[in-house]
Amino acid sequence: MPEFLELMSPGEALSRWFIALGEPYIESEEVDTIRSLGRVTADAVHAPYPLPAFTRSTVDGYAVRAADTFGASDSLPAYLNLAGEVPMGSQPLFTLKPGQTALIHTGGMLPENADAVVMLEYTQSTRPGEVEVMRPVAPLENLIRAGEDVEVGQMVIPAGSRLRPSEIGGLMALGLRTVRVVRRPRIAIISSGDEVVPPEIDPLPGQVRDINSYTLGALVEEGGGLPIGYGIVPDQANVLRMALDQALRECDGVLITAGSSASTRDLTAQVIQQAGQPGILVHGINVRPGKPTILAVCGGKPVIGLPGNPVSALVIAWLFVTPLLERMQHLRRTRPRGQVMARLSLNLPSLAGREDWIPVSLTFGKNEFTAEPVFFKSNLIFNLVKADGLLYIPADATGLSAGEVVLVYLL
Amino acid sequence: MPEFLELMSPGEALSRWFIALGEPYIESEEVDTIRSLGRVTADAVHAPYPLPAFTRSTVDGYAVRAADTFGASDSLPAYLNLAGEVPMGSQPLFTLKPGQTALIHTGGMLPENADAVVMLEYTQSTRPGEVEVMRPVAPLENLIRAGEDVEVGQMVIPAGSRLRPSEIGGLMALGLRTVRVVRRPRIAIISSGDEVVPPEIDPLPGQVRDINSYTLGALVEEGGGLPIGYGIVPDQANVLRMALDQALRECDGVLITAGSSASTRDLTAQVIQQAGQPGILVHGINVRPGKPTILAVCGGKPVIGLPGNPVSALVIAWLFVTPLLERMQHLRRTRPRGQVMARLSLNLPSLAGREDWIPVSLTFGKNEFTAEPVFFKSNLIFNLVKADGLLYIPADATGLSAGEVVLVYLL
Repeated sequence: MPEFLELMSPGEALSRWFIALGEPYIESEEVDTIRSLGRVTADAVHAPYPLPAFTRSTVDGYAVRAADTFGASDSLPAYLNLAGEVPMGSQPLFTLKPGQTALIHTGGMLPENADAVVMLEYTQSTRPGEVEVMRPVAPLENLIRAGEDVEVGQMVIPAGSRLRPSEIGGLMALGLRTVRVVRRPRIAIISSGDEVVPPEIDPLPGQVRDINSYTLGALVEEGGGLPIGYGIVPDQANVLRMALDQALRECDGVLITAGSSASTRDLTAQVIQQAGQPGILVHGINVRPGKPTILAVCGGKPVIGLPGNPVSALVIAWLFVTPLLERMQHLRRTRPRGQVMARLSLNLPSLAGREDWIPVSLTFGKNEFTAEPVFFKSNLIFNLVKADGLLYIPADATGLSAGEVVLVYLL
Repeated sequence: MPEFLELMSPGEALSRWFIALGEPYIESEEVDTIRSLGRVTADAVHAPYPLPAFTRSTVDGYAVRAADTFGASDSLPAYLNLAGEVPMGSQPLFTLKPGQTALIHTGGMLPENADAVVMLEYTQSTRPGEVEVMRPVAPLENLIRAGEDVEVGQMVIPAGSRLRPSEIGGLMALGLRTVRVVRRPRIAIISSGDEVVPPEIDPLPGQVRDINSYTLGALVEEGGGLPIGYGIVPDQANVLRMALDQALRECDGVLITAGSSASTRDLTAQVIQQAGQPGILVHGINVRPGKPTILAVCGGKPVIGLPGNPVSALVIAWLFVTPLLERMQHLRRTRPRGQVMARLSLNLPSLAGREDWIPVSLTFGKNEFTAEPVFFKSNLIFNLVKADGLLYIPADATGLSAGEVVLVYLL
């Protein structure tokens, strides 16, 4: 299947791929909450207890029956009798009778019959056992009601949420020390190319060390997947086919970095096309870098053929593999990607009708970022090391001018 | 040491803390490059080999001596003799004599005497052994010279760089399978409060489960540190003092989440002040949430007293602990934090002279983000679960209006 002559836009390509993929099924597993950072919930989490479990003061002060303070002022304070002090960490053993108050600390449990707290600074205690309140409080003032954060049974974390520090704290607050998450998708990485050798080999003239297995592995890891290396495969249809078949049996998805010449790209396409139904959906995307990208679904599993050029492979993986991993983990709430506005340092030409993603380095000064394009030739991986983000030139633009304010997605 | 009456701005507080801290010394360690994602380089990395190691074609086409193509056109092609085909992954065994050319694939090694490549589409071969070139090429066209990405001995990754997928690929391209990185800073987390119980305990009335140890632990992990829990300490000076002394002996820095009442905050401050020189540098910051924060240096190690309120603790940790971890790891090149511009959904009041950080949820529609403030009362951890980012209201603003475009830092 040769490259299409009519190239698709990246957005259209992604959507065609995802429609054919359907909703990928990946099992869930139970993990310790403290080890769950970055994982995605498989089920919705419901609160087994209310939070807080009891009504708590949010200030240091005096617990009162609010009605006892109505009309109080500096010139005419309400005089209340001190019933005691609420101990931190246990239930007060007294209840408030009308006209009574109790010293309470932030986080303390309100005594029975108390319905508000007066802040310490609006009180004074001139005589032992008596407290003067100089300001009125309304019922429910300066407290959190039992169940105000969360009611029993309330859904607190939806299925498909990525767990961040705040979610982990919330689970622990509810005593949930394990959580059911989507298993990390196993992503096979196959590197092809007769010229490619593993990093431990000293390359002979004409040979280069494998880069893509490692950049893509790290990107899969960042996206929540489990990268599984299938080594370097020579440019022979039968060997590549065997590697792909094995990867499809053992993993949830497959990345192949094809060689960069047209003939090896054709070979990769041919092998992918025969590996399962429906096969190749997109061959060639209207984007730079990354035009020769292949998106396929083989027997229900996603397969992507990435350009051999390491810079293109990484940019394309960022555009297609990261969203794929989110989808495979059933991430329902995609949080926005980091981006900054920056002033472009020089003119950038671009072909109308094609999306461009330009690696840029960012420097901050005079209250704004400056984006400096990192120009790259096909194989210069160390140019990408200089990049902080990718500048996006939309398909309808014919370029950008120096001094323009542009959107940069952070890498 | 009571809270200062004159509150410092967050920026001023951070800078005072860092000046007193000096350049923290943390050892380095050698780790496998494929396990180094997110770590920070301890030393600069220099290239042991040039990249590429040989001059390579960047296109599919014919390697030529450029001078042989000068003047070539569609009507008057240059006729060249085919010397052979460059095999992928090995050195061509022939050299180009004047008037000769060789078939070459993308990534192939140029034969001796070739100094440019003509793209396949500008050639045709009508007779066996002969190639017609219809366009001239300049010397160095369509190739990458040996050493063009990196020269031998060139510094490729500076000390203090966080390793991302592209850096990992670059190291592997150079055959560097291990890399010297800064040891992960060991950060002790002490939770104090008579009312706090560990998550495995069913809290009695008046008790709450520990949240801060886990939210802060996850945040330390995200920032590249190694969180080490020191459990829950009751609000007693001698017990807290013992825990802090032990933590200072065993770790590189200490986080204490103080109880939230004024008296337990004073207790924490007192204990920190006695734990080592110079002691407390900042006590009270002009920011909401998080006013009662304590920043200290005890015997050369950073100590931070965080508010007990889990929402405030997490926001303050994001503002102070994340930059601290970057400093402790000697991160020299701080990459920009993710941020988005968003339209505010409602009016937000704010005190002039105080920085406010408001948790917001973000929704995308009509080509822009809308930021919806998540209002929080002191202990509502699940409100923070709804937040995607923090909206910043600068100290000189008295609030923001609905419809304004605001800057939101992503959590």
